[in-house]
Amino acid sequence: MTLRTPLCDLFGIEHPVFLAPMAGVSGGALAAAVSRSGGLGLIGGGYGDADWLAREFDEAGDARIGVGFITWSLSRKPELLDLVLDRAPAVLMLSFGDVQPFLPKLRNTPTKLILQVQTLDQAREALDAGVDAIVAQGTEAGGHGGSRATLPFVPAVVDIAKGIPVIAAGGIADGRGLAAVLALGASGALCGTGFFTSKESLASENAKQAALRGTGDDTERSCVFDLVRGLDWPTNWNIRAMRNNFTQRWSEDIQGLRQNLTEEQARFEAAGAEDDTDIVPVIVGEATDLIQAIEPAHDTLHRIVSQAEDHLRRINRFVERDSKG
Amino acid sequence: MTLRTPLCDLFGIEHPVFLAPMAGVSGGALAAAVSRSGGLGLIGGGYGDADWLAREFDEAGDARIGVGFITWSLSRKPELLDLVLDRAPAVLMLSFGDVQPFLPKLRNTPTKLILQVQTLDQAREALDAGVDAIVAQGTEAGGHGGSRATLPFVPAVVDIAKGIPVIAAGGIADGRGLAAVLALGASGALCGTGFFTSKESLASENAKQAALRGTGDDTERSCVFDLVRGLDWPTNWNIRAMRNNFTQRWSEDIQGLRQNLTEEQARFEAAGAEDDTDIVPVIVGEATDLIQAIEPAHDTLHRIVSQAEDHLRRINRFVERDSKG
Repeated sequence: MTLRTPLCDLFGIEHPVFLAPMAGVSGGALAAAVSRSGGLGLIGGGYGDADWLAREFDEAGDARIGVGFITWSLSRKPELLDLVLDRAPAVLMLSFGDVQPFLPKLRNTPTKLILQVQTLDQAREALDAGVDAIVAQGTEAGGHGGSRATLPFVPAVVDIAKGIPVIAAGGIADGRGLAAVLALGASGALCGTGFFTSKESLASENAKQAALRGTGDDTERSCVFDLVRGLDWPTNWNIRAMRNNFTQRWSEDIQGLRQNLTEEQARFEAAGAEDDTDIVPVIVGEATDLIQAIEPAHDTLHRIVSQAEDHLRRINRFVERDSKG
Repeated sequence: MTLRTPLCDLFGIEHPVFLAPMAGVSGGALAAAVSRSGGLGLIGGGYGDADWLAREFDEAGDARIGVGFITWSLSRKPELLDLVLDRAPAVLMLSFGDVQPFLPKLRNTPTKLILQVQTLDQAREALDAGVDAIVAQGTEAGGHGGSRATLPFVPAVVDIAKGIPVIAAGGIADGRGLAAVLALGASGALCGTGFFTSKESLASENAKQAALRGTGDDTERSCVFDLVRGLDWPTNWNIRAMRNNFTQRWSEDIQGLRQNLTEEQARFEAAGAEDDTDIVPVIVGEATDLIQAIEPAHDTLHRIVSQAEDHLRRINRFVERDSKG
């Protein structure tokens, strides 16, 4: 495989593919597997648990990895930033919230800063903050996100990024998606759903099977899982997961869920203990159509890259060789 | 320009770009301009007005064009199908509803049938109906549509289309978008927003200026404009347009709009007479970021195609030439 973009040199990687820092799913083993296969794996810092983070960094061993946090959540536990900077991650990725408070501490570290954005205004703020790269995330992504879609959003961000590399996220789980976002002007892709069913992923076996069975038509954005988990997410963002009995009951009746919250939280907790995916969320995006197997992350990553190469060569044949171009 | 795909041979066109049949916007002049520039222009049949259709077909002169209808609306005025088939359009495109009643009449005509879909189930139905091509439309599209996004939806449709050409729609207004959807496995693109501000477009000057000023962050899907126009759209679909005072007032209070409908309809009608885009919809998609000027459709189409060629050549350099591939 030979597919390289300027992002590869900037981040010292072989392939322009990042593992999304999926909370509770992207642990040290998965991040390390992606990094050792030539991409860059990011541990999912999620809502922040010091013991979990320490363990997962240990799990990654000497692999060169990064870590991602939910910005508004990190601002409530800022000590976690010191904890991870002590591990000298290759990359810190922040999403969903104001990064200003963290910038001074990051300035004198070798850790590169990536900010994930869902609107053009957020992209402008991220660029003003002096990022090393920006992740433009489309609404088709699994987990938390906004409402813009990857295909038109990425080129719009590229147009204001003035040469800062743009990494596309949302809907990319195979080589066609990677080739497409490179065509849009992105320098690489951040993939979550594509690695959800990796052998090394911390998603449960039930959740992996549900993701394999499901199609992109079966996912939706909603705030019901945040409500029932007692997570006070800003309303700018909600969560894409597979529809299940819980979303069918409450997505169209948020007020009803609020009124029955105590009871529903108990039911949700019990379902969690049994890993009952009819109630607990399977947090994947629309790209779940494109995942086919539980396999080592290495195999997934290499298939994505070689399929992207094949597609780039194939579509290049649409531009005839005897042209003036 | 040399960019050709198998779609070009199938439809007898030079460039794999179709004009979306935007109701009230894609008239005969715009459809003809796109066709004469090497693409394929489709008149927007919309909710069906025989006089308007006859006039716009006349307006297109001898240009080889197609026409698109809203399927559920056409089923209420089936005589319009005879009217347009008499004009022997190159293509009939149907979207949003059950096409079965129309299939017998179409079988013995030279007019090719294209169906636009928003879910995988709809794609399967379309393929069973025996289409010549299928349009996979993402939620980022302007006007009516569903909830799947173009980037992950197109390859999922390609995977079940068994060689029937897939045309991507939603979010494509420049050459990067065209190159990207070809990378996804589509054979071409259907563009609406990209031609909304064409000189030949029937959109009002106010609407064109609003589209040029707006960004993709400023659009949203909602049913408020259908409600106020008294259009009983099936709930599977809603309309993407630019946010304005009307959506800000009612999008989050559908019940309130229903309760004040008579009054709001009067206000809406008055605003329509004055072309007041603070109230009447400017129906463009997220790709409005990528449109820059009021110009002849010919210039837009040729810029899309040559930019796609440039991007395909540029990204092909990411795949090194000395590879084994």
